[in-house]
Amino acid sequence: MESREHLTLPALRDSVNSSLKAFIEADNHYLTSIGPELLPVADALKGFLLDSGKRFRPLFAIVGYLGTGAELSPEVFSALSSVELVHVCALIHDDVMDVSDTRRGAPAIHKHFEALHTKNSFSGSAEQFGIASAILLGDLALVWAAKMLHESKIAPDQIISSLPIFDEMQVELMAGQYLDMHEQALASESVERSLRVARYKSGKYSIERPLHFGAALAHKNPEQLYPIYSAYGIPLGEAFQLRDDMLGVFGDSAETGKPAGDDLREGKRTVMMAMTHELATSAQRATIKELFGRADLTPADIQTLRAIIVDTGAQARAEELISELTDEAIAAIENPLISPIAQDLLHQMAMIATKRRV
Amino acid sequence: MESREHLTLPALRDSVNSSLKAFIEADNHYLTSIGPELLPVADALKGFLLDSGKRFRPLFAIVGYLGTGAELSPEVFSALSSVELVHVCALIHDDVMDVSDTRRGAPAIHKHFEALHTKNSFSGSAEQFGIASAILLGDLALVWAAKMLHESKIAPDQIISSLPIFDEMQVELMAGQYLDMHEQALASESVERSLRVARYKSGKYSIERPLHFGAALAHKNPEQLYPIYSAYGIPLGEAFQLRDDMLGVFGDSAETGKPAGDDLREGKRTVMMAMTHELATSAQRATIKELFGRADLTPADIQTLRAIIVDTGAQARAEELISELTDEAIAAIENPLISPIAQDLLHQMAMIATKRRV
Repeated sequence: MESREHLTLPALRDSVNSSLKAFIEADNHYLTSIGPELLPVADALKGFLLDSGKRFRPLFAIVGYLGTGAELSPEVFSALSSVELVHVCALIHDDVMDVSDTRRGAPAIHKHFEALHTKNSFSGSAEQFGIASAILLGDLALVWAAKMLHESKIAPDQIISSLPIFDEMQVELMAGQYLDMHEQALASESVERSLRVARYKSGKYSIERPLHFGAALAHKNPEQLYPIYSAYGIPLGEAFQLRDDMLGVFGDSAETGKPAGDDLREGKRTVMMAMTHELATSAQRATIKELFGRADLTPADIQTLRAIIVDTGAQARAEELISELTDEAIAAIENPLISPIAQDLLHQMAMIATKRRV
Repeated sequence: MESREHLTLPALRDSVNSSLKAFIEADNHYLTSIGPELLPVADALKGFLLDSGKRFRPLFAIVGYLGTGAELSPEVFSALSSVELVHVCALIHDDVMDVSDTRRGAPAIHKHFEALHTKNSFSGSAEQFGIASAILLGDLALVWAAKMLHESKIAPDQIISSLPIFDEMQVELMAGQYLDMHEQALASESVERSLRVARYKSGKYSIERPLHFGAALAHKNPEQLYPIYSAYGIPLGEAFQLRDDMLGVFGDSAETGKPAGDDLREGKRTVMMAMTHELATSAQRATIKELFGRADLTPADIQTLRAIIVDTGAQARAEELISELTDEAIAAIENPLISPIAQDLLHQMAMIATKRRV
């Protein structure tokens, strides 16, 4: 059995990183054996995967596994870390879908391959080459996620037991992405609808399903843990998304890796913006209508919008809702069916996911 | 045991279609239960999957399975038909990557969603909404492929046995797509390099790997069949790709679903074009350089290019190579390790894949 001091979040994150590194290096070798032209693909995916990342989803999967009382092994780390590659697919494709040119302060994958095209004086459109490469790299990440799980050398019955959740998590991810895009396209201002998007994008895909996946893979009566993990994951996901909404408006670029106020420029339909709209006076609504979603916002415009969000009380209400939802999540896991170490880690994860300084 | 009269290609194709229909209808129900906004996604994927398609890859998987002497069942049909959904992902993403606006004579998925955006007067860019939708639908098809295999109710050891090939097939697909795109970007005129792309895109992904997948899923010493299926699949894939190259230049639009001479307008670097380049006089090369890859080619220009391909002897050489490669493929499967019915079906498949009228 693991000694308790190895079950800290930083130690678990290190093990996730080691598993991902070992997998990607072996698979990159396979990829470049198909053709040396694939070296830029292998390098870009490896860089994207390893350069940073909070590893939230693998950590939730690991804690979901530990909650059953099962013991960790290198094989289990490898199987559970595979969810990070699903996330890599989502991020790479998201940047193409949103036409976002940077990710964590570096060029997005499509911009990286666009630059490669230009540098090599390839024929055809550099922009199109960038987009096409990013689509393929995202696809490859999704295939690699499955491959990493399948090759993890855990017992066959553990693989079989985890596949339904692994699949549903991905269907829900794609569905959530479409719903989000659809909301933006509808220019929806409904708090209720925005919360549903948050539920799929963050609650289910990032927290609940990774927890279920870990429990399913442990293959020891996972069904009794599913509702408990849902009761933790869904509210925590909403709280996490609200914190993310606040960072997108009030966070500084050093922290978010994106320009300050980026969500305001992008016109992102978040729960906090829907709250602002509900609480705003007609004069404030007119200002929002004029400025929100304009690519050429000045720092003064951003300050104007931020002030409206504060003055309407939407910021305070979002902060209050984060607290309520986090408390609800934490209360759910105080349950003897969940191992004490997992309860402790879930508590820490809830703090990290929602209490990031604004 | 199946009576032999049920093991005809049309009967097998009907069973593939029934399996795909049953799966997609059940999963569409699940998808729209997440949100009614997903109805256009469900409808578009169902239409794309069921409206047409030769089902080459599922048929090769089924024949690969039958070659081991194992018997078919509805569960096995369902498991093996899943490869068609991998192909749906490839086609949807391919059309975005190639900026192809039609597929089988209908709007490509990204154009379909672009039109939906316009019709509903959504906010934001209709073109970008179309592209983003197509990326998500392709991703969803890839996830559904895995889900269809996992849910097929075949024995767990059959699933476990088939997963490595299922994964490698997809890695090779993505790798082949990147190599193809890279060749186009390099404006390569090398026959050898074009053949390698054909080997990955058609030989391995469309024929060899589906055959291996079927054999692996039968889970009866598949290893002894792998090299035989490779010796059939690789040359047949090259022959199939050559026939496709010829159709892209000489085929009529009723047959290909694309405008006549489309590959000439697109400047597609095919094996036949590489042969033409090798065999051309300097005057012919100058004409190719002037016309090949121009979007505004007139019917007369297309005739000029076609005449060069014929006059250099490249067309005849491609035809000859198709015959040689097909003979090589057929010779490989005359092997007692392969069941007689599978030998018969593989012979028919080789004829269908390569002898389509030009």
